Amino acid sequence: MSADLPFTKPALGVCYYPEHWPESQWTEDAHAMADLGLSWVRIGEFAWSRIQPKPDQFDWDWLDRAIETLGQAGLNVIMSTPTATPPRWMIDKHPDMLAQTEDGQRRKFGSRRHYCFSHLGYREQSAQIAKILGKRFGQNRHIQAWQIDNEYGCHDTVISFSPSARSAFQNWLEAKYRTIDVLNSSWGNVFWSMEYQRFDQVDLPNQTVTEPNPAHAMDFRRFASDEVMAFNQAQAHALRQYTDRPLIHNYMGRITEFDHFEVGQDLDIASWDSYPLGFLEDRSDRDDAFKTRFMRQGDPDFQAFHHDLYRSVGKGRWWVMEQQPGSVNWAPFNPKPLPGMVRLWTWEAMAHGAEVVSYFRWRQAPFAQEQMHSGLQLPNGDWADVQKEIRQISEELAEIETPQTSDAEVAIIFDYASSWAWDIQPQGRNFDYFRLVYAFYCGLRCLGVSVDIIAPNTHEFGNRKLVIIPGLFSWNQTLLSALESFGGQVLLGPRSGSKTENFQIPAKLPPDLDAFDIKVTSVESLRSSDRKDLINSGHIEAWLEHVETSEDVVETTSEGDPVLIRNDRLNYLTAWPDEQAMERILADLAAKSGVETSKLQSGYRRRNWGHYTLHMNYNAFPIEFKNNNKTVQLGAAELALIHNETGNRLF
Amino acid sequence: MSADLPFTKPALGVCYYPEHWPESQWTEDAHAMADLGLSWVRIGEFAWSRIQPKPDQFDWDWLDRAIETLGQAGLNVIMSTPTATPPRWMIDKHPDMLAQTEDGQRRKFGSRRHYCFSHLGYREQSAQIAKILGKRFGQNRHIQAWQIDNEYGCHDTVISFSPSARSAFQNWLEAKYRTIDVLNSSWGNVFWSMEYQRFDQVDLPNQTVTEPNPAHAMDFRRFASDEVMAFNQAQAHALRQYTDRPLIHNYMGRITEFDHFEVGQDLDIASWDSYPLGFLEDRSDRDDAFKTRFMRQGDPDFQAFHHDLYRSVGKGRWWVMEQQPGSVNWAPFNPKPLPGMVRLWTWEAMAHGAEVVSYFRWRQAPFAQEQMHSGLQLPNGDWADVQKEIRQISEELAEIETPQTSDAEVAIIFDYASSWAWDIQPQGRNFDYFRLVYAFYCGLRCLGVSVDIIAPNTHEFGNRKLVIIPGLFSWNQTLLSALESFGGQVLLGPRSGSKTENFQIPAKLPPDLDAFDIKVTSVESLRSSDRKDLINSGHIEAWLEHVETSEDVVETTSEGDPVLIRNDRLNYLTAWPDEQAMERILADLAAKSGVETSKLQSGYRRRNWGHYTLHMNYNAFPIEFKNNNKTVQLGAAELALIHNETGNRLF
Amino acid sequence: MSADLPFTKPALGVCYYPEHWPESQWTEDAHAMADLGLSWVRIGEFAWSRIQPKPDQFDWDWLDRAIETLGQAGLNVIMSTPTATPPRWMIDKHPDMLAQTEDGQRRKFGSRRHYCFSHLGYREQSAQIAKILGKRFGQNRHIQAWQIDNEYGCHDTVISFSPSARSAFQNWLEAKYRTIDVLNSSWGNVFWSMEYQRFDQVDLPNQTVTEPNPAHAMDFRRFASDEVMAFNQAQAHALRQYTDRPLIHNYMGRITEFDHFEVGQDLDIASWDSYPLGFLEDRSDRDDAFKTRFMRQGDPDFQAFHHDLYRSVGKGRWWVMEQQPGSVNWAPFNPKPLPGMVRLWTWEAMAHGAEVVSYFRWRQAPFAQEQMHSGLQLPNGDWADVQKEIRQISEELAEIETPQTSDAEVAIIFDYASSWAWDIQPQGRNFDYFRLVYAFYCGLRCLGVSVDIIAPNTHEFGNRKLVIIPGLFSWNQTLLSALESFGGQVLLGPRSGSKTENFQIPAKLPPDLDAFDIKVTSVESLRSSDRKDLINSGHIEAWLEHVETSEDVVETTSEGDPVLIRNDRLNYLTAWPDEQAMERILADLAAKSGVETSKLQSGYRRRNWGHYTLHMNYNAFPIEFKNNNKTVQLGAAELALIHNETGNRLF
Repeated sequence: MSADLPFTKPALGVCYYPEHWPESQWTEDAHAMADLGLSWVRIGEFAWSRIQPKPDQFDWDWLDRAIETLGQAGLNVIMSTPTATPPRWMIDKHPDMLAQTEDGQRRKFGSRRHYCFSHLGYREQSAQIAKILGKRFGQNRHIQAWQIDNEYGCHDTVISFSPSARSAFQNWLEAKYRTIDVLNSSWGNVFWSMEYQRFDQVDLPNQTVTEPNPAHAMDFRRFASDEVMAFNQAQAHALRQYTDRPLIHNYMGRITEFDHFEVGQDLDIASWDSYPLGFLEDRSDRDDAFKTRFMRQGDPDFQAFHHDLYRSVGKGRWWVMEQQPGSVNWAPFNPKPLPGMVRLWTWEAMAHGAEVVSYFRWRQAPFAQEQMHSGLQLPNGDWADVQKEIRQISEELAEIETPQTSDAEVAIIFDYASSWAWDIQPQGRNFDYFRLVYAFYCGLRCLGVSVDIIAPNTHEFGNRKLVIIPGLFSWNQTLLSALESFGGQVLLGPRSGSKTENFQIPAKLPPDLDAFDIKVTSVESLRSSDRKDLINSGHIEAWLEHVETSEDVVETTSEGDPVLIRNDRLNYLTAWPDEQAMERILADLAAKSGVETSKLQSGYRRRNWGHYTLHMNYNAFPIEFKNNNKTVQLGAAELALIHNETGNRLF
Repeated sequence: MSADLPFTKPALGVCYYPEHWPESQWTEDAHAMADLGLSWVRIGEFAWSRIQPKPDQFDWDWLDRAIETLGQAGLNVIMSTPTATPPRWMIDKHPDMLAQTEDGQRRKFGSRRHYCFSHLGYREQSAQIAKILGKRFGQNRHIQAWQIDNEYGCHDTVISFSPSARSAFQNWLEAKYRTIDVLNSSWGNVFWSMEYQRFDQVDLPNQTVTEPNPAHAMDFRRFASDEVMAFNQAQAHALRQYTDRPLIHNYMGRITEFDHFEVGQDLDIASWDSYPLGFLEDRSDRDDAFKTRFMRQGDPDFQAFHHDLYRSVGKGRWWVMEQQPGSVNWAPFNPKPLPGMVRLWTWEAMAHGAEVVSYFRWRQAPFAQEQMHSGLQLPNGDWADVQKEIRQISEELAEIETPQTSDAEVAIIFDYASSWAWDIQPQGRNFDYFRLVYAFYCGLRCLGVSVDIIAPNTHEFGNRKLVIIPGLFSWNQTLLSALESFGGQVLLGPRSGSKTENFQIPAKLPPDLDAFDIKVTSVESLRSSDRKDLINSGHIEAWLEHVETSEDVVETTSEGDPVLIRNDRLNYLTAWPDEQAMERILADLAAKSGVETSKLQSGYRRRNWGHYTLHMNYNAFPIEFKNNNKTVQLGAAELALIHNETGNRLF
Repeated sequence: MSADLPFTKPALGVCYYPEHWPESQWTEDAHAMADLGLSWVRIGEFAWSRIQPKPDQFDWDWLDRAIETLGQAGLNVIMSTPTATPPRWMIDKHPDMLAQTEDGQRRKFGSRRHYCFSHLGYREQSAQIAKILGKRFGQNRHIQAWQIDNEYGCHDTVISFSPSARSAFQNWLEAKYRTIDVLNSSWGNVFWSMEYQRFDQVDLPNQTVTEPNPAHAMDFRRFASDEVMAFNQAQAHALRQYTDRPLIHNYMGRITEFDHFEVGQDLDIASWDSYPLGFLEDRSDRDDAFKTRFMRQGDPDFQAFHHDLYRSVGKGRWWVMEQQPGSVNWAPFNPKPLPGMVRLWTWEAMAHGAEVVSYFRWRQAPFAQEQMHSGLQLPNGDWADVQKEIRQISEELAEIETPQTSDAEVAIIFDYASSWAWDIQPQGRNFDYFRLVYAFYCGLRCLGVSVDIIAPNTHEFGNRKLVIIPGLFSWNQTLLSALESFGGQVLLGPRSGSKTENFQIPAKLPPDLDAFDIKVTSVESLRSSDRKDLINSGHIEAWLEHVETSEDVVETTSEGDPVLIRNDRLNYLTAWPDEQAMERILADLAAKSGVETSKLQSGYRRRNWGHYTLHMNYNAFPIEFKNNNKTVQLGAAELALIHNETGNRLF
């Protein structure tokens, strides 16, 4: 995974908008960046209207000078394609390029991401501007990486119900099924007389009277994901004709509407935009007490989860392209990070293998939508408090040699298609795929275990000891082969293998495995008030499957329902364990797998990093813990990098 | 009511979809049905695309063979018209037949019930397919009943804001009012200058700036109900030309958008689809604690209420066409019934007079929208657990002679128009007509009283002792005559008789009765936090009327507001009593009426059934009670059929 | 402010709809009004379809007779323009005059206020009917005042997204910015490539993918407010050609979508429609416990706030045009006022300077939308209970001489533009401008202080001792000059002066004042669960600014964050104090300003009124308090008018 990494040491960067500031300020800015220890600067991703103010006019001078100024200060530039913000004249040219919402409203110009991925005219324009930029800057010595577009899927922009999407979907279906009869039988359209005579009769699955056929909805979700991949691919192909610098996209947190692994195939590095406080308020299922406790630190596992996910999406190479540096403007509540948290987040990313951590943004803009988003500088050019933490990281980085990241002993499969499937058919109001996988991840983290998150079509599991596959929609041959050749323990369920590719119940019933004699005969989705006691500690909640099995039933509810079933190396969970049961079950299974665990105190986390372990206190109060028989003390939001054998604390 | 019932004994049935399964399986299925003790099988209600795959092509062979196979196994077939699922080609033919939502969106093909009741082209097509089916199968010896369409009103499909509905509404208004001046004065359109000059200016009452005139909205709701009646009538007329078998529709639970009594006039038998667990989660106003307690049993009164309602809609003849047999797929949470509940539900329906109880569905489908809906068999053909309970019922039915249903001593009037009226003008957020009527019903059930639910235009009340008329929108002459000639006690209010037919306040003020000197001078709708103590036990909530009266004030709030007012045989409630007050007031009134009551323990219910009483334990724990000085014990979800005089328990 | 008031004594009035009642009843009604002590009667505001039943037909006879009948009974008539209810034929003439919602739906005829303020055709028609009415009745001796339209902004009608609005907005922008480049730079459109080439490319700011540019949204809100002003102006100009009677509009409670001060410039008297119970349920942020406690009395400060606001909007002259007389029909819950409350509300209005208090409505209508809205008479013509209270007020008015209203010692600035700004950019879910200003107002009221509410462009503060400016969006020169010349104390913040007029962060950072060395470097919006202790008593909540300052920090949080900062006469609050902290801080500042305060018991309020003080018990239970060493007792909902020096209680 990490054989020929070009960077031996993580670096820091920043996002900069020369077009927002008078040119007279650029040189000073560039030198201040370098002085702070930054070596990367991302530019250009929203600058289309300045690069091409009219369809037939390009303004290169300012951009040439900006790149030169930054480069002269010793900074590596990440140049971006500006396709997330098509200028107003583009809408004059392609009025129908705007996406449409589920209830048919056409979205308008006036913010960003106002395009439908299926509009071929705009896709062509995007490839064209990528080509033009590639041609001009592909060999520029200051430009050391490229970003394509910006935050695919942000603001619910993957799924569009436009006429362009409708006809592209019909073509996609025809390419997949060839004949309408195959589509009808694959979807089971005999049900409710939903049979079609021609592909052009198949509409997008919105605005039906009650739910559409789940197979119909599932193909639409696959199609929508493919459209993102195709859009990205068009730009990647255009750029690769002119540059050999790495291509990157900056993904977001908890966006599951497209398959990031697929998009990642066409890029060299994955990056993501890490906003721990914004995401806690905006995208977390945690309860109010949790959010209040961590409102200035972020969810202690959310960052790590995405670090591990995007390391896999990037095939080992990944960055944080935008790191929250202070309060943001877009969450329901926008507090400031505790002093120390930006440093903690930065080191945590590096310990998960980030090559670059880049802060968003250099200076707070006094105008437009994000004027309340903090930066490293205030709008008036004064330093924001956070600069002290960044300076400290720069100094620390200079002092130590950082290890490379290696495979973890435990891997969890994350499958975007499963997320679509259970969106379409939750069967119970509180079933959510991301939350399910995340519950396993958090369970492992609280046991001090480092984890890899891997794709569902992984060819082999390497030297891993335990692989966890929760809620997998449907098996694929690659995964089945990997399972067969794997010697470690596997934990499946609930709901794994419960459907065929065509969204049907498998003929031999879930979990649809030859090597494991279990048949799920019925399922129950449960009210949150209907938690069921386990024979051992903890409860199950939200989901319970009833099974017939000849395998060992290792654990049951107090009413006798089988919950954990096992044969030699396969384990199946019929239910969703609560936090207490999850940790107990995972600890047992880790022990059986030879994975060392230790229950960590609340809010304390750690991450293996070669000879080191990074210890982090996500709490707003000091803690202490034992390490190699020494007591280590960590203040609020403090971290420690400690050598595993010597017990020496580097900082 | 029950003079010449053609069935002397209830029977069991099942819903079957031969088109979903290979023909090779049909014979085995049919024999398994018969072997289980089923004698009825419903088919065809969603099979249009297989019967008529193209506008000009009919495929009868498969259906002929399916009917023959089922009939040969000794099953009576219920044939259905497939008009709830017009095939895709019908939309090509009539693109404007799709209904429109309140905000003007046209609903799409891709699920079911995708038609507007007011589209005359589709109404004609529906009558046509009914006629063709009637012609072919009207005299078929295996077909012993017909179902028209499926679940009118399910998925909010009664009310459509399409152009077809608009012009049909204008015609309906012109037929009703003749001149626009009469409409203007009937509605009081002088208010806010809402006067029209022509009928074609009257729009549907959606998307107005603030609420439309309630008289306008009320006429629209009457119109929408009439459209359902006309749609059903067109098919009924078509079928009756070719068959003398009984015509049935399968209604749903708590759907009030059309007048079921009116539709029932054109049919021979009423049936309904009883999903106790689904309805508890999806359509019940009960609080979380109640739902948690009864999540695997269903609301103990909801089934009985609808049994009693549809017995009346069916003029004495009624079935359960679809009985929930396990977990369903469509509620927010989908648990399994407790073991025993399917048997309990089945016997309860029979004790309320059901001629047939038919389970939905024979085998769980592995594909499409309802793949997570359980059946009597698993998708792989194995039996589901529930078959044991059904086999048991078959055996029990064979052993006993079942009595006919006779009039109950107490009747409640249920008036669909009142439901529309208080939807339109709740006056307080927590006023709901169904909930009000249901509160009286539950109060009586908890006192062990069997109840009839009757139409608002009932001609006479027979030998009943107590008639309850809560929340009646407006008097009609038939009802006033019935009241006049009735010798028993009558309980009215709150809100009864509070409007004229034109949705105006009556000139002599509510309750608008000559024989009862009460004038409602003002009303208050109350926050749920503003419950008022009664002088006796309990509270009133949600609603309080202030009155002038010379009649006896029997009960007041602790602040002295009259709550129960009485003259010789008329009683008026000015407020909505809570559970405790409701039971006390009903018990007093029952005593006054000569109706025997006894407060039942929680979760225990009973139903009079000729010489027998059916005793039911809706609790998830065992109970015991005294009957004829014997202690009877009922396990969780258990029932007992006990002879009233001997005290013998049949099972 | 009050030099030449034409009315030396407040008067009572009523709203009457002769067109709703048979002409035979008019005379009796008119005499009953006069007998009750009413001297004003408002008519005609919804009568357009009776005045002009067809485009080319006017019916004056009935209206002439109605005015004459009322006038003959000694009543002064307020004639209204009927433009809030254009008749149905107007829609035939101008189908595109209907407003459109944010999601593009065209609102329909069938209620009221169904016009878009930007439709020039309808604006012309409105001026035309005003002119015709003015011509006919402008000199009528019975007509002593005019009302233009009715309740601007009610039912969310200020903001429309119609094509008319779109093109009017483009013209408005062009008039403001002259060139598109100026607009682009003023808005900061370089951000996200939002730059325009032509004004006709600028769309309304709805349906953007994520939030639009706040400068774009702010200009749209200014434009929408200007359209109301222009619409009103057109009618005012038309009327003034024919009449010299005062022109009035009846505003509503807590409607902030247009600048009432601006509209008020074109009118002679401001009035408002005071519905204390309806507004408590419908427009109050109070919690459930508060609403339950005051559900029959209303929020004790809400009426006073609007009285003070509209006194300022009316430049000293103001009325209550519609006073709630009993339960209403339009709130989520509609209880009745406690006996005494209508009298209390009436006297309270007068003590705040109301010239007229007019009840809505004379008789409850038995038909149409407001049939459940009570009046002074029941639908059958009987008196409602409330008439006794009104008769009592008439008698009391006859007995006493009422003082004029003079400037209060404390003023709060209320700025409609700030309300728009923080709607657009709340930055935290629980930041609301009205609620912020209201919190200061309530804090003062609970200290027994009378307050003026003044416009943000006030030229000078007169003899006031304390001026409070919370949450001011942006400074204007007039206000800065007034501040400079003011000798009293000023309390600013939080968020005051935090933007430039173009919705940008000021170059020298907020609060953007030369005379006060404070720089807000960052802000936090806080979860409601994250209240922060102050060093002294109380907490701050919802909002906290971090500052650099060389001024005195008077108070901090327990964590040391500066909360109150002061130089000689300027005070700045960095946070939103809770109730306890607010009262303490205001009491301190009042003391420093020489304003006398005394903490009032809960639910008790008072208002200075010349030599008198009006004491009010908003509680549902009796209270007592000390006044001039005498104990005064007030029953539930009772009031007392007490001479300040003698201590004599007039009633």
